Amino acid sequence: MSIRRIDPIKRYLILAEGYSDDLHYGKTARGVIDYGPHPVVAILDSRRAGELERGIPVVATVNDALCHGPTTALVGVATQGGRFPPAWRALLRSCISKGLDVESGLHEYLGDDPELADLARRHGVELRDLRRPPGDLSVPTGEGLEVAARIVLTVGSDCAIGKKTVALLLDREARSRGVASAFVPTGQTGIAIAGWGIAVDAVIADFVAGAAERLVVEGFTRGGTDVLFVEGQGSLVHPAYSGVTLGLLHGSFPHAFVLCHLAGSSEVEGYPGHPLPSLPELIELYEHVALRARPARVEAIALNTRDLDEDAARAAVAEAEQTTGLPVDDPVRFGAARLVDALLARTHPRP
Amino acid sequence: MSIRRIDPIKRYLILAEGYSDDLHYGKTARGVIDYGPHPVVAILDSRRAGELERGIPVVATVNDALCHGPTTALVGVATQGGRFPPAWRALLRSCISKGLDVESGLHEYLGDDPELADLARRHGVELRDLRRPPGDLSVPTGEGLEVAARIVLTVGSDCAIGKKTVALLLDREARSRGVASAFVPTGQTGIAIAGWGIAVDAVIADFVAGAAERLVVEGFTRGGTDVLFVEGQGSLVHPAYSGVTLGLLHGSFPHAFVLCHLAGSSEVEGYPGHPLPSLPELIELYEHVALRARPARVEAIALNTRDLDEDAARAAVAEAEQTTGLPVDDPVRFGAARLVDALLARTHPRP
Repeated sequence: MSIRRIDPIKRYLILAEGYSDDLHYGKTARGVIDYGPHPVVAILDSRRAGELERGIPVVATVNDALCHGPTTALVGVATQGGRFPPAWRALLRSCISKGLDVESGLHEYLGDDPELADLARRHGVELRDLRRPPGDLSVPTGEGLEVAARIVLTVGSDCAIGKKTVALLLDREARSRGVASAFVPTGQTGIAIAGWGIAVDAVIADFVAGAAERLVVEGFTRGGTDVLFVEGQGSLVHPAYSGVTLGLLHGSFPHAFVLCHLAGSSEVEGYPGHPLPSLPELIELYEHVALRARPARVEAIALNTRDLDEDAARAAVAEAEQTTGLPVDDPVRFGAARLVDALLARTHPRP
Repeated sequence: MSIRRIDPIKRYLILAEGYSDDLHYGKTARGVIDYGPHPVVAILDSRRAGELERGIPVVATVNDALCHGPTTALVGVATQGGRFPPAWRALLRSCISKGLDVESGLHEYLGDDPELADLARRHGVELRDLRRPPGDLSVPTGEGLEVAARIVLTVGSDCAIGKKTVALLLDREARSRGVASAFVPTGQTGIAIAGWGIAVDAVIADFVAGAAERLVVEGFTRGGTDVLFVEGQGSLVHPAYSGVTLGLLHGSFPHAFVLCHLAGSSEVEGYPGHPLPSLPELIELYEHVALRARPARVEAIALNTRDLDEDAARAAVAEAEQTTGLPVDDPVRFGAARLVDALLARTHPRP
């Protein structure tokens, strides 16, 4: 089996020790709670035990979680560099010895840890590394150019500003209109939500484009025969992750981009001294790097207005429309209808 | 030890079965013969046994090579996707059982093959995978921005057109002038030649920029205190490898680019339907994607004129100068002096 698939029946305990209220590092937890098909029955964060987070009980220990009937513990944080915080080992051992399967999206694989792997064997549970790539990846074959669906890639000014969420919401809106659409997951949270995918940031660098191509081909066979909404990664102006961004951009052969931006941000988060270009400059940059064999335009902008009140959000949307001349909206706040209208107005190409 | 280092005393047998006269796939063989510090005593290619290649005897079998006294067999081909041609197993087994160490730059690691690893143990030889990355890579720290040398990155219109060779020649010319210069190897052939480095195309995609940063820091400590010539990889317009290109470009924090181009080429080699932009368009593209925190300009062009006679080569150089307004030369054919003049005319920045 060359593309990761996840067991369809589960009840999640999300491990978010120290991060359950952190919007940046807790993005896996948040994505699975808000968009996943599986119930999240408890969240583990000892600092906040007894509280509710999005209506879900927060517990202090794995034992406290058991009365909620979890089947699967999900590592709900994405650390920089993708390594395990050392204090987590005890937590993982506890989950395994209580009979929970464990899913993780970090670069450090649970299954490669001899102690945890041995413990899992003894307790009959599975360790699933969402980011572990298939073993048979290679360079693109060109098959991606033949996919007979319109391919829309979410791109962005930075990481963790909503590229995955926007792709999920656009797909959901398109499907609600009877369009044969599919979400194409390219990262660990998208995989946890959709139950399939490849984390393109975890593959060997030479094979990022090949992995991206395989994902759009798979998305088409999974029912996205009209349109594929591909989850973007990183940013072309991110000093750490731009290589993944460009490999995914070329290998997924998009016809159109949706540019995602956090309203008010002006610097790469966590990288002081790395300024963000303006929206018109970002549009120019993304369109400039598209392959000549598959030119692509930014056709809409998804503005993340989470830091603004509603009036300021509407003003920011209007200002971005003014500046760029493109349809702009915050699909999380105001719904995805306007952006989907704009994206589906184009004819679907048939190669 | 976090950066790969290679045993300094060896005599190579280059394994190039089927490829000893192929300029594209035999690029590891060619690089080590032309620029490496270690003698190549024989080349194995049964189709051409008895001939000479660059003055080196071509042999049919490992046995026939032994009279030339090799210590180390080098896999001298770079296959697409980096896998072993299946017919090579017998050849590798033969090298190992005759007591030769084996070095390989393919993505498929010799050391991970249980049969070959076991055979190597029994015969007391080493299997060295030049492309195997250090285990402790992560994202960039920003340390690369602090490196107090001028950093020059070779970039290109395509793969296998001379980015490594140009960096080697520029470094050699600069050192001959008493400049404290170093060549920074970023691929398997560069590593085989220089004896250190990281193959940035073989690292986890998220860590390409982090690996590149580590390489410029290491190049500085190895004596490149005036200038570092960083071996570029791939091309921004290559549908398979552009992600590696951009990650290396951002992570190595270059002050200047040398744009490498094969005179007369108009399409990505091996990817029909993927046209190459013109030189002015390539210059604009590379300068556009440079980080704002480290803007970089194309300061010179290295034109590979291997397919032209000398008059045509001089005309192509003149035409490229005319079109771009930049210093242009073919350093392999005409020497690296003019390009080094242009690159060293700039002041070395001290952060």
